[in-house]
Amino acid sequence: MSQGFFYPRTSTGRSSLLPAPPWFYSGDLLTVEYRTDPERVAALLPAPLELAPEDPGAVAFIWADWQSCSSSREELLDPIRSQYKEAFVVIRCSFEGRTYSRCAFIWVDKDFAMLRGIHQGYPKKLGSIHQTRPHALAQAAPQVATGGRFGATLAAGDRRLAEAVITLTEPSDTNGFVNGHPMAHHRVLPAIDSNGDAYAELVESGASDFEVGATYAATVDHFDLFQSPTEEIADLPVREIIGGYYRQVGVVWNGGRSLAALATDGPAETLAP
Amino acid sequence: MSQGFFYPRTSTGRSSLLPAPPWFYSGDLLTVEYRTDPERVAALLPAPLELAPEDPGAVAFIWADWQSCSSSREELLDPIRSQYKEAFVVIRCSFEGRTYSRCAFIWVDKDFAMLRGIHQGYPKKLGSIHQTRPHALAQAAPQVATGGRFGATLAAGDRRLAEAVITLTEPSDTNGFVNGHPMAHHRVLPAIDSNGDAYAELVESGASDFEVGATYAATVDHFDLFQSPTEEIADLPVREIIGGYYRQVGVVWNGGRSLAALATDGPAETLAP
Amino acid sequence: MSQGFFYPRTSTGRSSLLPAPPWFYSGDLLTVEYRTDPERVAALLPAPLELAPEDPGAVAFIWADWQSCSSSREELLDPIRSQYKEAFVVIRCSFEGRTYSRCAFIWVDKDFAMLRGIHQGYPKKLGSIHQTRPHALAQAAPQVATGGRFGATLAAGDRRLAEAVITLTEPSDTNGFVNGHPMAHHRVLPAIDSNGDAYAELVESGASDFEVGATYAATVDHFDLFQSPTEEIADLPVREIIGGYYRQVGVVWNGGRSLAALATDGPAETLAP
Amino acid sequence: MSQGFFYPRTSTGRSSLLPAPPWFYSGDLLTVEYRTDPERVAALLPAPLELAPEDPGAVAFIWADWQSCSSSREELLDPIRSQYKEAFVVIRCSFEGRTYSRCAFIWVDKDFAMLRGIHQGYPKKLGSIHQTRPHALAQAAPQVATGGRFGATLAAGDRRLAEAVITLTEPSDTNGFVNGHPMAHHRVLPAIDSNGDAYAELVESGASDFEVGATYAATVDHFDLFQSPTEEIADLPVREIIGGYYRQVGVVWNGGRSLAALATDGPAETLAP
Repeated sequence: MSQGFFYPRTSTGRSSLLPAPPWFYSGDLLTVEYRTDPERVAALLPAPLELAPEDPGAVAFIWADWQSCSSSREELLDPIRSQYKEAFVVIRCSFEGRTYSRCAFIWVDKDFAMLRGIHQGYPKKLGSIHQTRPHALAQAAPQVATGGRFGATLAAGDRRLAEAVITLTEPSDTNGFVNGHPMAHHRVLPAIDSNGDAYAELVESGASDFEVGATYAATVDHFDLFQSPTEEIADLPVREIIGGYYRQVGVVWNGGRSLAALATDGPAETLAP
Repeated sequence: MSQGFFYPRTSTGRSSLLPAPPWFYSGDLLTVEYRTDPERVAALLPAPLELAPEDPGAVAFIWADWQSCSSSREELLDPIRSQYKEAFVVIRCSFEGRTYSRCAFIWVDKDFAMLRGIHQGYPKKLGSIHQTRPHALAQAAPQVATGGRFGATLAAGDRRLAEAVITLTEPSDTNGFVNGHPMAHHRVLPAIDSNGDAYAELVESGASDFEVGATYAATVDHFDLFQSPTEEIADLPVREIIGGYYRQVGVVWNGGRSLAALATDGPAETLAP
Repeated sequence: MSQGFFYPRTSTGRSSLLPAPPWFYSGDLLTVEYRTDPERVAALLPAPLELAPEDPGAVAFIWADWQSCSSSREELLDPIRSQYKEAFVVIRCSFEGRTYSRCAFIWVDKDFAMLRGIHQGYPKKLGSIHQTRPHALAQAAPQVATGGRFGATLAAGDRRLAEAVITLTEPSDTNGFVNGHPMAHHRVLPAIDSNGDAYAELVESGASDFEVGATYAATVDHFDLFQSPTEEIADLPVREIIGGYYRQVGVVWNGGRSLAALATDGPAETLAP
Repeated sequence: MSQGFFYPRTSTGRSSLLPAPPWFYSGDLLTVEYRTDPERVAALLPAPLELAPEDPGAVAFIWADWQSCSSSREELLDPIRSQYKEAFVVIRCSFEGRTYSRCAFIWVDKDFAMLRGIHQGYPKKLGSIHQTRPHALAQAAPQVATGGRFGATLAAGDRRLAEAVITLTEPSDTNGFVNGHPMAHHRVLPAIDSNGDAYAELVESGASDFEVGATYAATVDHFDLFQSPTEEIADLPVREIIGGYYRQVGVVWNGGRSLAALATDGPAETLAP
């Protein structure tokens, strides 16, 4: 009997890179929301997804500094197994009359985070991600408070891809609106003979539990996206900054549900709900 | 229309982490073959696989120092995109009367290599892999020649997992026998609701073209596998060293074929060939 | 005119890896204090240093998760230039009747931290250092509060060298006593012809300003030092655990003073104070 | 008695990051030579150095992929301790009527290489360095032969700093001329009280033994230097490409000699030879 949630599977399951969900997260999110040309967002939405009806060109660029663990919490005491950072681009879309958030691009810095992405439909690559950390002592750190300044950078393939600087202005009830819906992601596995996909599915997922800590609105003092021959984020140019946010969160993720089985070489068929 | 062989897919396909096969490789392989207890190998063979009929406890521990590229060869000129190293454990198995090789555990050091593994059914994690490089000038390098000594190490999660030292003894026609068959791998995708697998398949793949360079047999001067709370390679203890090998190879990989659709919560059904 | 505090120096000083002091730090310290055999400590004390008169076998093993910057604070907004981690071994010694702390071994994970060590006399190597981070949301993090559990690990050369787990028990006025004195360090530069040292000096330094945040005493649930062919920390075996501590600090470092010019091939001569 | 060539020093010397010279190297060098404005080179020459009398604006940008070891050669069998890469900028200068090469900027990817730089006067930072590797099998590699194309890149601080592509044209007797002289480097140690230098010296060093392997001249198909807030290589703009080279070398380095004791806060005094 083979055990283990995902690769590698063995008779014990002990060496699986991923424990079974639920997965637990504590971390800080630094968000820049902006508007790009809606047709650029549309170009990132494969069938059966369509543009969101309102503010269709809105984008959220989010950095996150995470600690995560399984139900055993054992990863927290061997922290190379629990700490990771990520930077990701969120757009919105519409499916069967409902608005979803969707991760268009994402970089992480650990293998377990990358494999989680395969499961959740996040299109993960490895990157080098950094964001300023708040600290109780101010000698070399901002606080999560009005006036706190935070920087964030993303690189991959030895090229800097994005950078931001924000200054917190006042407490906020929200962390923006672009990443505020359930996520709609394509989960795919190309066919082993390279002839289309062996498996393709549209899934919905989101936090099964979500706790919000300190949240601030921020001015966006600096935000830049850079060209790279292997990336397309600079093809989502900034037409208008919407705003910046800083939020501390605690999250539980415990799976999602299938929205549609997608044809591997033709139009999608919608599953019965 | 969505393009890109694997994540992320966009309208251009430009940012896909993987180009479509064929994939091309040039590299050096350092192999240690040994025998462990056959029941330990059996414990790593999920249905419908069975132990190989001959020498069922044979294992190959292989280090590889690769450069790889797509048909465009553009990755070779931005070498952070083409160079990677890996270490992997190969066992053998039997399916429908035929003997296959099978990768039980594998570590790589780049994201594109990790995502290729998801496609090919290699159970990849990230690791830190090093092997001595030969060089034409001997001041700080062995040659691929009788008397050349090569070391190799593997670490993951900040723990050393394996290390070997071999000394080349004489030219050899083979690189051992454990990794000499087509590979039989499970390709799986857990269900998004965590209830079994959404997709599970047994595939066969191997090099579509394979060129052999210098090949030497070697004595195994040192070989050690270390305990780790997240790994199981030390559960394949060395009962007898079979031999060591060093080989330079050029490889083309261009997909494989499906051997069987596997039930996601029951016994496997064999596909019609 | 050449400018720049340390390498490289140019006409502008802009590319110097180190800005001139003062240097500012905010971070968290996880400390395990223990007793080893005093003769093992003595073996790490070169002339003119002698064993501390009281509790001469006391050792502090300290992990630190830092953010640091110069007076410009610009590094904080490009955080790859400000964040680093370190793990270090502190012993005590006596010089001219005064007790000093002394760093015997230290690993950091950034180049600017390594070069600072050359200036300050810390014998730095690169390592991989991790310690559990506290977070306001408890889903995947402890708090700096009674009951909080923190782990810490150190690796170098792809080998794990040390690991610890502590549980906070109660607020504390101190962070232990081993690292509580000014530091006495040898600053050396070997002669370019390999014949002894070109320069050798005993210096004293410490924080020019120091602010203490939350501080807790802790039980030491797990502490282990591992053998490595290139390290000697396992030669400071644990005879008795003294205690554990967790402390948040803000520090300013602004240089030190010379205690003695040391002979480069003979006994030390003491400078006039 | 304290032993160890450089930090850390202990009673055994076993954990010193550097063994005593001689140090042995085998590796491949990819060189781009070009002319910049001579006044930009002059700006990088502190007293007592002056511009070289002939072709004073010549610059060599060199990538190197090394394996190195001590006399024991033990590092070769634990290759994380012997393999490293570097990229460096070489200019020329004149001192007392003799022409020297001089490293203006350099990045390496290992701690032992960085500490060697402190000893040799190379102004080293950590970087991410990659260059295409030749391999006997051509599936994913060039050969060191006419027509072979090699790429090379440098990044630091998550920014790409330089990249080059060259195509080998014909065997060559030389590897260029800029890096062909003994090196003249400043070795400095800032004073612990930040008041000038505690030690400053001009040294000469070079290979004590040098073996040349395959050497080719090359066209420079692409060469670009990028801006960074922490670097100055883009201040050496390319006015004219001189040529490209690829060379395999074996080197022994066994110390150098002092050329001049430099005043730590005034003009240099020349040592008697």
